[in-house]
Amino acid sequence: MNHTVTAFDGLAEQKDLHFGLEPAAMKLRHVVESQQFTLPLLMELFGRSRGMERIVARGGSLDYQQRIMAMLFYAPSTRTRFSFEAAMHRLGGRVLSTEQAHAFSSEVEGEQVEDSIRIISGYADVIVIRHHEEDGARRAATVSAVPVINAGDGKGGQHPTQALLDLYTIYRMRPLDGLSVAFIGELDQGRTVRSLAYLLAKFERIRIFFVSPPEMQMKPDILDYLDRHNVRYEVESDLNRVVGEVDVVYQTRIHPARVANQPILRNYAIDSSVLPRMKPDAMILHPLPRTVELDKTVDSDPRALYFRQATNGLYVRMALLTMLLEQ
Amino acid sequence: MNHTVTAFDGLAEQKDLHFGLEPAAMKLRHVVESQQFTLPLLMELFGRSRGMERIVARGGSLDYQQRIMAMLFYAPSTRTRFSFEAAMHRLGGRVLSTEQAHAFSSEVEGEQVEDSIRIISGYADVIVIRHHEEDGARRAATVSAVPVINAGDGKGGQHPTQALLDLYTIYRMRPLDGLSVAFIGELDQGRTVRSLAYLLAKFERIRIFFVSPPEMQMKPDILDYLDRHNVRYEVESDLNRVVGEVDVVYQTRIHPARVANQPILRNYAIDSSVLPRMKPDAMILHPLPRTVELDKTVDSDPRALYFRQATNGLYVRMALLTMLLEQ
Amino acid sequence: MNHTVTAFDGLAEQKDLHFGLEPAAMKLRHVVESQQFTLPLLMELFGRSRGMERIVARGGSLDYQQRIMAMLFYAPSTRTRFSFEAAMHRLGGRVLSTEQAHAFSSEVEGEQVEDSIRIISGYADVIVIRHHEEDGARRAATVSAVPVINAGDGKGGQHPTQALLDLYTIYRMRPLDGLSVAFIGELDQGRTVRSLAYLLAKFERIRIFFVSPPEMQMKPDILDYLDRHNVRYEVESDLNRVVGEVDVVYQTRIHPARVANQPILRNYAIDSSVLPRMKPDAMILHPLPRTVELDKTVDSDPRALYFRQATNGLYVRMALLTMLLEQ
Repeated sequence: MNHTVTAFDGLAEQKDLHFGLEPAAMKLRHVVESQQFTLPLLMELFGRSRGMERIVARGGSLDYQQRIMAMLFYAPSTRTRFSFEAAMHRLGGRVLSTEQAHAFSSEVEGEQVEDSIRIISGYADVIVIRHHEEDGARRAATVSAVPVINAGDGKGGQHPTQALLDLYTIYRMRPLDGLSVAFIGELDQGRTVRSLAYLLAKFERIRIFFVSPPEMQMKPDILDYLDRHNVRYEVESDLNRVVGEVDVVYQTRIHPARVANQPILRNYAIDSSVLPRMKPDAMILHPLPRTVELDKTVDSDPRALYFRQATNGLYVRMALLTMLLEQ
Repeated sequence: MNHTVTAFDGLAEQKDLHFGLEPAAMKLRHVVESQQFTLPLLMELFGRSRGMERIVARGGSLDYQQRIMAMLFYAPSTRTRFSFEAAMHRLGGRVLSTEQAHAFSSEVEGEQVEDSIRIISGYADVIVIRHHEEDGARRAATVSAVPVINAGDGKGGQHPTQALLDLYTIYRMRPLDGLSVAFIGELDQGRTVRSLAYLLAKFERIRIFFVSPPEMQMKPDILDYLDRHNVRYEVESDLNRVVGEVDVVYQTRIHPARVANQPILRNYAIDSSVLPRMKPDAMILHPLPRTVELDKTVDSDPRALYFRQATNGLYVRMALLTMLLEQ
Repeated sequence: MNHTVTAFDGLAEQKDLHFGLEPAAMKLRHVVESQQFTLPLLMELFGRSRGMERIVARGGSLDYQQRIMAMLFYAPSTRTRFSFEAAMHRLGGRVLSTEQAHAFSSEVEGEQVEDSIRIISGYADVIVIRHHEEDGARRAATVSAVPVINAGDGKGGQHPTQALLDLYTIYRMRPLDGLSVAFIGELDQGRTVRSLAYLLAKFERIRIFFVSPPEMQMKPDILDYLDRHNVRYEVESDLNRVVGEVDVVYQTRIHPARVANQPILRNYAIDSSVLPRMKPDAMILHPLPRTVELDKTVDSDPRALYFRQATNGLYVRMALLTMLLEQ
């Protein structure tokens, strides 16, 4: 595959965000987990994402006609897939796509991901993988001749681009240093909060509240990580004690079946009764899709940013693709 | 999403089809049901469709490189999907596509269509939806920030673009005023005939024959609609009494299983024995796919237009997309 | 559909490969089986494939923006599909794609392939079909208004483009006349070896060894074909007697379940113990995916060409598409 440098003139104006680092210091080869993003890389990414907003707003395009992105999904997720594919199309590029990568061949079910990646490396310039095993993306990156992006691996794995777009959504509203965030829901499930917690740890004076019934609380590995990085956090079971204090109310999916078994989970829902207690400039985030934990009556509140999150995902993924494809 | 006006110079020659109406009067925002097409809108659409035929014939293209169409299908239908996607590609545009929209997220089966549409509105410039519920397309249009096209909703719902391409196929052959049409088959099933009946009611001196065993006849809501709009129609059970009189023989699918149970359905098939009784300038239409009700020996008859119908679908959908995307 | 001639200036330099034949003599309409490729057609294809390697290497593109390729797969095979789609994208073209063509319509399961092809002929400029019946591709070609490419039909059918890329991979390393090849594995299964054997028969002084347990040997129709074309071949059950003599070790899939039942199949695997006995300039090919018959320790051997085979598939399919679309 060709790897000629793609011009990216539109971002000259954001040079000041580079913190004076040499470009070589920011080279991004693969995107496997959110921890790998340094502060300068994050600021580079967010600067470019702002540029993408402007380009999309004026109906412009970039010069990626010759570049191909392969979507290798081992399970369907139209939401994430469309976001990446729209990003590549808005850059002017092209897309190969499957949501049933387990049928990579008609003859052998369950081919090793390494062989599939080696082959796709010969067709595409960047590979976006969603794998069912926690180390699927890392294994892919190890053998790939082209950049690999993790679009979610395993139940307890990561989904780093979701965390990046979450953080970008906050960044667009206020400075990240000094931020207080409440993560709410079944925190033992789901990789979104895990990935975002890693990213928040890179900023100053962050306060995190993990709000959940005790038996569904955030797993110790994340709490240990925050301890090691001197991030203040509290483990809390009462939403009422937290909701009025935080800048960001980050709600996550609650499985309806689990609510049926444990009605206490209803106490963690956000609805119009909770809204008056939030700070007037709070932000309500949710990775979507939602079920019972986020009421539709919240949608019209100006603090509800979850649909804007989705659109920001387009800009952040466009920006990420340019960073990976420029090398 | 950007909504800059896309130039459409190629149609200046069809200005005379505009009936002198102000363009503002013809604005088309969503396509949910065939009734919404006024006569001027239909003529605008058909004029543009003619222009598309010419553009495709000379291998040309239009300037839609920056526009993205999202195909949100809740059940697979390659036929309809390919037709829309080919239309968007022939315009120069780009496509996001799923036939398993029920897996819009990997985490929640059966997300509300409203949330999915709100998110896709942030990625795409137009959304084509096929939904299993009769009001799926309307619900989508209600929340969408970009135009929505109904590509078939529910069993008893509509499929307006099929009706538009059916009508365009007739329009290309002869004037629509004064037309006589026989609809044949299991008329209690299928949305194609329903949608087309609504459109025919907009023209003058139309005569419709609904030809079917009594227990499979067209439902009263359509007959009431025709009554209210003073359209002449007859409910008929004998194909022989009608087939020699009509300009259009519109055959529809008969389910083979139903034929096995009710052999009388064989009497409604079109084969080489029926051809001599048709008018020499009759048109044989069928929405396809066919089963037992339309014999392959009919294919070589010059009055068989069903494959041309499919190609006309390309032109009509191209034209429709330009009307929706220009706004 | 338009069929204007597409300029292909980049290949003027390969004119000497045309063997002085008139272009008209090389017209390729459909690609159904490997036998149809004459020696001049093969050399034309391989010359173009070389040109494609250069175009891809310099990040170039060709002028196929207005051309649409439809992928009509009746069973998923992401590997083959991505290869064709990447080829069309590298040419600058556009793609319609399904891996569930049996759901061509939502209403009728199992529509006749002829009707589907007639309809897609109205949308696309070339159709790539993978069908489950051995004559599926031929039936498609019979009714299609545009070129059809067989991407694998039936269990005992053909997969001609796989054979073409296999042969091209060898051709890039050494002259084809005088070649000796060992085909290894369950030779009664799989169409790859069948298609390649037909192609090899077109060259001079070829020697073929079919290496397999007697009960899984190559079927008589291929052996008869080789007899009729005076190709030397041997049916062999002992890999050791052959592996040191041949220029090409062509390993094929062995089903793990079959190995469990017949442990003798282990004797046909290629691993690091076999490598020292091969000729220093031998080539190890495999159509992939692999299971137990080709050990990962072989991957780092410079004679292992199976991943390069996959990349060559891109160039050969690009070249093939240009030959079909130029007409």
